[in-house]
Amino acid sequence: MTAPKPISRWPVPDLNALPEDLREKILAVQEKAGFVPNIFLALAHRPDEFRAFFAYHDALLLRDSGLSKGEKEMIIVATSGVNRCLYCVVAHGAILRIYEKNPLIADQLATNPAKADLTPRQHAMIDFALKVCSDAQNIGDTDIAALRSHGFSDDDIWDIGGITALFGLSNRMANLMSLRPNEEFYLLGRVPKSKG
Amino acid sequence: MTAPKPISRWPVPDLNALPEDLREKILAVQEKAGFVPNIFLALAHRPDEFRAFFAYHDALLLRDSGLSKGEKEMIIVATSGVNRCLYCVVAHGAILRIYEKNPLIADQLATNPAKADLTPRQHAMIDFALKVCSDAQNIGDTDIAALRSHGFSDDDIWDIGGITALFGLSNRMANLMSLRPNEEFYLLGRVPKSKG
Amino acid sequence: MTAPKPISRWPVPDLNALPEDLREKILAVQEKAGFVPNIFLALAHRPDEFRAFFAYHDALLLRDSGLSKGEKEMIIVATSGVNRCLYCVVAHGAILRIYEKNPLIADQLATNPAKADLTPRQHAMIDFALKVCSDAQNIGDTDIAALRSHGFSDDDIWDIGGITALFGLSNRMANLMSLRPNEEFYLLGRVPKSKG
Amino acid sequence: MTAPKPISRWPVPDLNALPEDLREKILAVQEKAGFVPNIFLALAHRPDEFRAFFAYHDALLLRDSGLSKGEKEMIIVATSGVNRCLYCVVAHGAILRIYEKNPLIADQLATNPAKADLTPRQHAMIDFALKVCSDAQNIGDTDIAALRSHGFSDDDIWDIGGITALFGLSNRMANLMSLRPNEEFYLLGRVPKSKG
Amino acid sequence: MTAPKPISRWPVPDLNALPEDLREKILAVQEKAGFVPNIFLALAHRPDEFRAFFAYHDALLLRDSGLSKGEKEMIIVATSGVNRCLYCVVAHGAILRIYEKNPLIADQLATNPAKADLTPRQHAMIDFALKVCSDAQNIGDTDIAALRSHGFSDDDIWDIGGITALFGLSNRMANLMSLRPNEEFYLLGRVPKSKG
Amino acid sequence: MTAPKPISRWPVPDLNALPEDLREKILAVQEKAGFVPNIFLALAHRPDEFRAFFAYHDALLLRDSGLSKGEKEMIIVATSGVNRCLYCVVAHGAILRIYEKNPLIADQLATNPAKADLTPRQHAMIDFALKVCSDAQNIGDTDIAALRSHGFSDDDIWDIGGITALFGLSNRMANLMSLRPNEEFYLLGRVPKSKG
Repeated sequence: MTAPKPISRWPVPDLNALPEDLREKILAVQEKAGFVPNIFLALAHRPDEFRAFFAYHDALLLRDSGLSKGEKEMIIVATSGVNRCLYCVVAHGAILRIYEKNPLIADQLATNPAKADLTPRQHAMIDFALKVCSDAQNIGDTDIAALRSHGFSDDDIWDIGGITALFGLSNRMANLMSLRPNEEFYLLGRVPKSKG
Repeated sequence: MTAPKPISRWPVPDLNALPEDLREKILAVQEKAGFVPNIFLALAHRPDEFRAFFAYHDALLLRDSGLSKGEKEMIIVATSGVNRCLYCVVAHGAILRIYEKNPLIADQLATNPAKADLTPRQHAMIDFALKVCSDAQNIGDTDIAALRSHGFSDDDIWDIGGITALFGLSNRMANLMSLRPNEEFYLLGRVPKSKG
Repeated sequence: MTAPKPISRWPVPDLNALPEDLREKILAVQEKAGFVPNIFLALAHRPDEFRAFFAYHDALLLRDSGLSKGEKEMIIVATSGVNRCLYCVVAHGAILRIYEKNPLIADQLATNPAKADLTPRQHAMIDFALKVCSDAQNIGDTDIAALRSHGFSDDDIWDIGGITALFGLSNRMANLMSLRPNEEFYLLGRVPKSKG
Repeated sequence: MTAPKPISRWPVPDLNALPEDLREKILAVQEKAGFVPNIFLALAHRPDEFRAFFAYHDALLLRDSGLSKGEKEMIIVATSGVNRCLYCVVAHGAILRIYEKNPLIADQLATNPAKADLTPRQHAMIDFALKVCSDAQNIGDTDIAALRSHGFSDDDIWDIGGITALFGLSNRMANLMSLRPNEEFYLLGRVPKSKG
Repeated sequence: MTAPKPISRWPVPDLNALPEDLREKILAVQEKAGFVPNIFLALAHRPDEFRAFFAYHDALLLRDSGLSKGEKEMIIVATSGVNRCLYCVVAHGAILRIYEKNPLIADQLATNPAKADLTPRQHAMIDFALKVCSDAQNIGDTDIAALRSHGFSDDDIWDIGGITALFGLSNRMANLMSLRPNEEFYLLGRVPKSKG
Repeated sequence: MTAPKPISRWPVPDLNALPEDLREKILAVQEKAGFVPNIFLALAHRPDEFRAFFAYHDALLLRDSGLSKGEKEMIIVATSGVNRCLYCVVAHGAILRIYEKNPLIADQLATNPAKADLTPRQHAMIDFALKVCSDAQNIGDTDIAALRSHGFSDDDIWDIGGITALFGLSNRMANLMSLRPNEEFYLLGRVPKSKG
């Protein structure tokens, strides 16, 4: 048994020492989720990068899109699996399970997307994301055409690529920081909420 | 939403049509686990290979060893993650959580062993297993010496390599079959058993 | 001979149709550089992502750091070479040549950093950046220690990793868009400015 | 000139100290082949694993199949070449030459299967085996369909995959042990037997 | 700032100490180019290899061919980019720019051939060259047929492969020597020659 | 069973139609070896390249060197194994067996150099050759120093690299041509010559 590792390789600032906008954002997510995901604390070491990262995140994940909220998380989990990013696999795996009300889908996508319970359209989406993740230099017209044949619009295609690219950044930062997932994430979405 | 995929790409025999020894083994595991892990049903398509596989499995996993039962499962989960074998990651992840009484360790090892909560000795064990998994051709005296410096005996070293090699076989068969993990495995060992 | 390819696979908005803040930023860069780098036009297809990207960019590249402005560009050029991103190699190659007043350094770093005219400290910086770029999952204490032995502070190390991660995003987006470098970049910094 | 290396990195038990069933099996193979292949001696260090390995081996290689005995050895030689396993390339190369009465085929398959004197059906078989060997995670319906189009039954396909998986285990164990091929194997099947 | 590195890891002979035929060849190239490309000086350390290399070079590059002189240089620049050979990228990039009267094409091909301004026929030529460069073992009839469909003759195909193979040799020697490109090459062909 | 494949994908010229110097060289090798190695016939399709190739070959292989004739062939066989060149593995494997009077060494080096019966000095030589073969871009002072510590002179080091580079060319050409090894090579050096 080893002692728990710290949240991040870099110092994690005290909540009270943070700029007002960061503290408010963190308190809001805490109220909603019941805990503060460690990425918020670790990135707060650099307030300007914190602001830019979440602005980019919201621009891509909150905009109206031909992708559902669950599909966006599928992209994150599958590409984070390839990049072997523990934080993103565990944290976004939880979000994916909740959005899809599917306790199996995150482990499937993180381990081997080819075996995941996806529609053919979703498989095409993930195949494209994996190519942007690992071989973007060879993305060509054929890849774009394959997505269009499944009904993805050009803006949907940008979304798939953009989410992959943003979480490529996130995966590298999390691996650099040795960012530790909150324990809460591991179980979220795996068991039905108790009713009443 | 897609229909659930079958257990295996090949036919799964009816329990009553199986040779007596297979049926007994399957009923025994069902009694112990509460369900029949799909690998037993899928491999029963070939009774002789079923017998040989489980004989090999028991020879390596049940023998006395300098590795604990949990450590043996660590090897299986980490190498199955590299081989991207959904069945083995999910099923042996469950067993690992139970043996180690640690709900986090399986996801850590499957996603990125470098970030797992392991002792230095266990990290050395996993590093060696990953080299046998992906680059056995270059295993040399230096690799052996590194394990010995952590107190592993020569028979422990064989065990690490042997378990890796056996689950390399298992990973390839499971990926070939598209072997589907039982849903029960996904949750096992993640929540404390209710007491009383 | 083929017709010139478009700037981006996606539509490039008209400058007059852009939100005021984007138009101002673009006009400012045009005044300073003498032309509008295509990344500004192509990213303007998504104003929120444009704002977030340049906020992130400025947070990392304009902050005080133990890295010089030229060293930050060295990281961008070397990792963009590995990611085979034509836009970033050509555009940031130009900036690097200007900052370093060195007409050779960009081609050296884009082609083979091991052969570039760098100090040992800069080689250590680039080696680390290349590992974050291609193998972040295995970044460990040894890599951090190697940088510290060259006098890099912990915040410098974050900068090296952060710049690499941000341009990993940028490289993927540029390859996705088939973003075309402005012809001006190819020659910038290669010839001494005429005097008088 | 260096001294001959030992048969295995682990101790090789004395024939008289072995359990009766192992000794009988070894004496039988010696009578048939004229010498004891080193894998029998090296694996005898672990009698239970010895029994399981050869049970698995016989289950796959001795069963009736749509694959000829020579074709099964083709799979072993080609995949052992990819895994760079000296013992299996040399020992099964000999067996392949004898079964096929072809002194060239083993070196062709071990070095570059694409250049081997195979029928299109055999090339399809080897292509599939190489994918199970190196990329089993991506085996899909298209790969299965390609084999069926050459007349392979579903059980033949299992055989191709199973033999590949078993020798993937064998290759890893042999590389781990530094298992040394018997000198006899190098020449077997290369020259016509003298008649009369 | 670091001191300039030497031309080659090995001694560079004095021009006056060279065999007559080498000196003449070197003086001829100097007269034509205005300077002596460093490969001539570095290879002169081994006069017989110098003679053989340039004989091979001339046999492939000076013969009549269905490939233009510029197309032959495209092959060299693209494959040297993959092999990360600084000397060949910089020196042959210059020659390519001059032959094609195109200041952009060399940086495009060295960085990412998929994004270069090529005709479909030239893209097919480069795709084939890249396969000979990195995966010659799998060149097959399909690859040959693809070239024929673009009008390449069998001798053109040999030329593509031969140039790739020869510069594979050259790239390895230059990387071994740490062969330093002449500074003149970096700028050649980038700016229109002043007239009058 | 398939029909024997042709010697080369390109036409093989008639001996009588060849330039005098090629015909003489070919007849000389035939007299010495008892047969004409197919590389001589296949390359004769391009007489100038034939002359240059063998001039390069002789410059490297016939010069006095700190490497023995057998050691030079060890480099060829090991790197041709990595490049999966059937012709060079089989033909130079034969030459290596003869030079070293060792019927095992060629199969060892072609399959897995780490398991070959080499001296530590020869292992260092082969490690260096493999790096020039597959990763020349990263050859650095440390690699050179490792060879010097085994007593290799700077000219020996050039020889190791040069032979590797030349046979990298040869391997690519042979794979491009689908150059077929003469059957005689497979057996040469495997059995003691009959005496008397």
